[in-house]
Amino acid sequence: MAKQWTETADIALRADGQRVADLDTSSTPGFDGGKRLGKELLAERALVLSVLQEKLFAHGRTGGQRSVLLILQGMDTAGKGGIVRHVIGSVDPQGVDHASFGVPTELEKQHDFLWRIRNKLPAHGQLGVFDRSHYEDVLVVRVHDLVPQAEWEQRYDQINAFEKEIADAGTTIVKVAMFVSLDEQKKRLRERLERPDKYWKFNPSDITERAYWPEYQKAYQAVLDRTDTEYAPWHVLPSDNKWYARLAVTELLIAALAQLELDWPPADFDIAEQLRRLDES
Amino acid sequence: MAKQWTETADIALRADGQRVADLDTSSTPGFDGGKRLGKELLAERALVLSVLQEKLFAHGRTGGQRSVLLILQGMDTAGKGGIVRHVIGSVDPQGVDHASFGVPTELEKQHDFLWRIRNKLPAHGQLGVFDRSHYEDVLVVRVHDLVPQAEWEQRYDQINAFEKEIADAGTTIVKVAMFVSLDEQKKRLRERLERPDKYWKFNPSDITERAYWPEYQKAYQAVLDRTDTEYAPWHVLPSDNKWYARLAVTELLIAALAQLELDWPPADFDIAEQLRRLDES
Repeated sequence: MAKQWTETADIALRADGQRVADLDTSSTPGFDGGKRLGKELLAERALVLSVLQEKLFAHGRTGGQRSVLLILQGMDTAGKGGIVRHVIGSVDPQGVDHASFGVPTELEKQHDFLWRIRNKLPAHGQLGVFDRSHYEDVLVVRVHDLVPQAEWEQRYDQINAFEKEIADAGTTIVKVAMFVSLDEQKKRLRERLERPDKYWKFNPSDITERAYWPEYQKAYQAVLDRTDTEYAPWHVLPSDNKWYARLAVTELLIAALAQLELDWPPADFDIAEQLRRLDES
Repeated sequence: MAKQWTETADIALRADGQRVADLDTSSTPGFDGGKRLGKELLAERALVLSVLQEKLFAHGRTGGQRSVLLILQGMDTAGKGGIVRHVIGSVDPQGVDHASFGVPTELEKQHDFLWRIRNKLPAHGQLGVFDRSHYEDVLVVRVHDLVPQAEWEQRYDQINAFEKEIADAGTTIVKVAMFVSLDEQKKRLRERLERPDKYWKFNPSDITERAYWPEYQKAYQAVLDRTDTEYAPWHVLPSDNKWYARLAVTELLIAALAQLELDWPPADFDIAEQLRRLDES
């Protein structure tokens, strides 16, 4: 654990009965170092993450069957993209499987909701990153009644079974729900309307969705209550402070990778012999 | 063009009749700034690349149909992975489509050689990166007679037609052939045998392949002679100096992206109206 953490991020952020409505989105659970130190630490810990990720990749290349999957959920402007850019951006792109899930395509709609998700699961040795995920199918879908309740109701169990299956197959699942306050979201949306380099990120429906804030909170609460499992635990991430969110996710990934206890794969060849062959070549 | 370049990388590295056998792999065409300056420039230019890539991504998100595809070819240890990590690693992972092509799988073998390549082409707005590519099918395949000559002979034309098609569809293709000397390769392979954190990168066949060096040079020469086109030009990159190779590819990508002349997409909504809606939300 890095200094300035009073407890590790994976413990400080564990969902474990958390009430979404009570969350202080400007808090920095487990960390009392402040912004400047937080940013310094991020740079330092990114290097640790990068080495651990390379070990995972190395194992995948030599027959290892482990992988890590980061699932990011959050309302518009919660900072999912920033996590991808600033946290995932610090590791080798060769070892990253990134997927973002928007409104389902016509083809995707012709399959079960987990079909497109399965297609994007990380291969052995990869760090998979889902920007939104199958949880959309019990969030936006539930809030807007896009399918009958009887259908989305059964998805919680289906999701748990699905996640258990992939966890059993060797994927460490790290689920992160990012929350900003309604005010912080307003500030971030305003920025997208005031800066020409951000217009492209804005969609008028982002404002429309704000009216459904309580319904989304309820839907997120159900997600936490019904899909927070031992094999795929949820972390609740207060995200008003971008520097904290990025540092915390870095720590969550470091913890997940460290737990695999991977070292560099041993040589599966006779080193002296190969050195001799190389000299003669 | 950044200072220290006597001519731009895309001009200095153009294949244009280059003889592979005559290449000085330790040279730094177009750049006379030396290693320290080169490394400083890389950090600086990475930021320029990152903004240009984000503009491409923004266009893709708002209906734009352009993409960029970097094709990296080179012998083992030429530094393709380093380019991915240190050049592609400087842009937002959300906008990167990375694929590496190894020995074809059983499924891939049941299709035309371009099938697996097509599957991995970058979507609109994406920066695609191929670590090895369809050129393996006229390199290793030719050197080791993996298919009859009549079959690989026709692939040059097929490749040109394929690349013309995707270029016409809006993909800017940047092809880079990386070359190290036989001695430099020996040094790099030795490192993989001497450092436990690099064993996993070593394969005994890497040494076996060294005996085919002249055949590979000939095969690369044929690639340059027969697939260097206006719509998909080859760049010949001397790669003994990793810092130079990384800087040069950064410049090639900057040039390719700059040529698209993309600015931030304009708002496709009434800004004042949305600000009013936001205030009321």
